[in-house]
Amino acid sequence: MTTTSIHDVLLTDLRQIIDERGAVLHHLRNDAVDFHSFGEAYFSEIIPGAIKAWKRHRTQGQNLAVPIGRVRFAIHDDRSDSPTCGAVDVIELGRPDNYKRLTIPFGLWYGFHCISDSSALIANVADIPHNLNDVELLDQNDDRIPYRW
Amino acid sequence: MTTTSIHDVLLTDLRQIIDERGAVLHHLRNDAVDFHSFGEAYFSEIIPGAIKAWKRHRTQGQNLAVPIGRVRFAIHDDRSDSPTCGAVDVIELGRPDNYKRLTIPFGLWYGFHCISDSSALIANVADIPHNLNDVELLDQNDDRIPYRW
Repeated sequence: MTTTSIHDVLLTDLRQIIDERGAVLHHLRNDAVDFHSFGEAYFSEIIPGAIKAWKRHRTQGQNLAVPIGRVRFAIHDDRSDSPTCGAVDVIELGRPDNYKRLTIPFGLWYGFHCISDSSALIANVADIPHNLNDVELLDQNDDRIPYRW
Repeated sequence: MTTTSIHDVLLTDLRQIIDERGAVLHHLRNDAVDFHSFGEAYFSEIIPGAIKAWKRHRTQGQNLAVPIGRVRFAIHDDRSDSPTCGAVDVIELGRPDNYKRLTIPFGLWYGFHCISDSSALIANVADIPHNLNDVELLDQNDDRIPYRW
């Protein structure tokens, strides 16, 4: 597990078990040191060039992996009590060179951009189930976030 | 949720939330009526025409979904105390018409075959973490299982 330029955002190397019939790809186990609860597993497909941004959760934390395609994530910290308040981090995930678990705690703005030639699949194991009231949204070009897609 | 021709094997319709940028695809929530524990989330990729079979878990149960590609699963019940002992069930999963969660309890032989023109991805949320000692394997052509791939 490695830290990133945003406090509490973590990257964890994940195993890719190669098999001529197709690989087995790890995501998250309940005995991982940073696992605390299971809320919901779901997928977000994203077509080449598309952007899904910005989103912030009030209480839900994310555990993301990209088993298919390549995705550029941007994360913005505007938490006033955070040691990295104001920071933006940009993280690319995809196999085989960058197959990792990206852990994003609640309270951070994030979004993602498909940068592969074919659709990408983002898998998430969130720590609580999805709840619309937990989500805040901003337009992908909102000036309050210092990142341009 | 629907039952199948094998006792305790369940199929549950899953939501596909369509979006021009790419769909959001449900898999499993902790408040699902058939959810009992989270052990491990992982993926198994399978290339066109490939078969991964046979496998049986002593204590681990599986919650499978196929967000990419199309997969034919075969399941064999040889549990002597099962009301469906001797049965074989064949279940195809894939979007958009057959996007479902396939729940396979421990103690059943199962395997799968990629029947799409491009690789498929099977996602699993198992109820306990993977443990090699939990797994029994048979050759895909083993005569003890009355199914030919």
